[in-house]
Amino acid sequence: MSDRDRKPPFRRGGRPFAKGGAKGTAKAGSPGREPAWRDRDSDGPAILYGWHTVTLALANPARRIRKLLLTENAARRLADENIDTRIAPEIVRPSQIDQMLGPDAVHQGLLAEADPLPSPDIDTLAPEGLVLVLDQITDPHNVGAILRSAAAFAVKAIVTTARHSPEATGVLAKSASGALELVPLVSVQNLARALTRLNERGFLTVGLDSEGSENLGAVALREPLALVLGAEGKGLRQLTRETCSVVARLDMPGEIKSLNVSNAAVLALYIGASRLGLMS
Amino acid sequence: MSDRDRKPPFRRGGRPFAKGGAKGTAKAGSPGREPAWRDRDSDGPAILYGWHTVTLALANPARRIRKLLLTENAARRLADENIDTRIAPEIVRPSQIDQMLGPDAVHQGLLAEADPLPSPDIDTLAPEGLVLVLDQITDPHNVGAILRSAAAFAVKAIVTTARHSPEATGVLAKSASGALELVPLVSVQNLARALTRLNERGFLTVGLDSEGSENLGAVALREPLALVLGAEGKGLRQLTRETCSVVARLDMPGEIKSLNVSNAAVLALYIGASRLGLMS
Repeated sequence: MSDRDRKPPFRRGGRPFAKGGAKGTAKAGSPGREPAWRDRDSDGPAILYGWHTVTLALANPARRIRKLLLTENAARRLADENIDTRIAPEIVRPSQIDQMLGPDAVHQGLLAEADPLPSPDIDTLAPEGLVLVLDQITDPHNVGAILRSAAAFAVKAIVTTARHSPEATGVLAKSASGALELVPLVSVQNLARALTRLNERGFLTVGLDSEGSENLGAVALREPLALVLGAEGKGLRQLTRETCSVVARLDMPGEIKSLNVSNAAVLALYIGASRLGLMS
Repeated sequence: MSDRDRKPPFRRGGRPFAKGGAKGTAKAGSPGREPAWRDRDSDGPAILYGWHTVTLALANPARRIRKLLLTENAARRLADENIDTRIAPEIVRPSQIDQMLGPDAVHQGLLAEADPLPSPDIDTLAPEGLVLVLDQITDPHNVGAILRSAAAFAVKAIVTTARHSPEATGVLAKSASGALELVPLVSVQNLARALTRLNERGFLTVGLDSEGSENLGAVALREPLALVLGAEGKGLRQLTRETCSVVARLDMPGEIKSLNVSNAAVLALYIGASRLGLMS
């Protein structure tokens, strides 16, 4: 699937929260602005729904929950599993959550409005392990799936651009399946400058690109490692490519030579984590 | 992202082709039926859009193109790249394709109505290489991304259930990025019976499941290999699990222990293809 196949639904449809209170997500007051993770620092709450997404948020002491909507079934399931809701939930009918999120969202009876998590400064990143850098990947399903894989591979942080990145809310949060609570998102204004900082601090910065000069499997990977991914179609921007220590491709035996971006990301993570000895 | 996050848009919205001629995709005449790849044998055409999806269909002699809609730009680009359109295209405005597909589809000015490709019989599969088996994975974006990865890893065929599988059209075809033309889809009525046939014919059938008894990396993989994936949440059905030669899990070092299903698929393909010596 192309990264451009789906635009962020919270901007496009106008449907979610048209009647609800979460006006910060609708961008009505910010004409011409791109959806951006920097908006996590804005007044708009993060909208979290679905079992994993909401329960991991409830388990994260750094996440301030403002409002919690639960169906009776979901409330019972939380009680059965001894999960502390932290604030008094509003018990609602499933259709009330449907109305807020639109008919496609699989919310499983849980919806939370929460404060966005803070974005750490890039200079606070310890020079160890595996870091992921996303160069203007815009599709929230893909970015969410990448976050989920990052949490599965014990990635230390995801660095992303403030502009041309989807907000850490809604579909992205749901696709991340709770990973927003586990992997810090470092939002930067200038990605090339951030990569330069990572280089200076000892990271091996490896860009993934079908035009890469070496196969990723043949690159001598070492810790700390930053894997850099671009959007499908566009790939890495010129300056991003030039700032990486190495630009590598993923050689594959079949007729199609490029993968969906979240699929490319999980392969790069697996190869990176294996080489760094993190898999055992 | 959960496999259940998005339902097949061609059934839900009623929007695509409400005014168009592609009535076979709307399921109006078949109440209570699941979307299914067997419908590729029905009268409904496959709807193909986007550059890769349409140009690979045009390059596939087995694919009968019934109708081709192009914007002027797309027609020029095809001519520039010396791509034979095979039938006389209808030149349309981009908005006309938008109207047919809905506002979210990134069609790049190309839309084809084509005959579905035939589903080969499972007994015609040569016992060699790598085969993928999907147990009721319903999300067309995920199935499309899996097809694309399958084509990248030179998978010989994808076996899927006739029921509880999305149709090989629309969003699935777009997400597959042309892979529908490269990887045969074998649609079966009974998956356990199909796995039994694969076992009898010498395939090592390996189910992927978080409850698997061994880590996939530790399983002695060999050719011909069939990797079996279930839907997120539900996983492999009981009978599917029992019919596989081995049920394996994917061990990962992080806090989240499950991946988006297309991400799990590409990892399994990479591990399988590497072990079978297909990567060099």
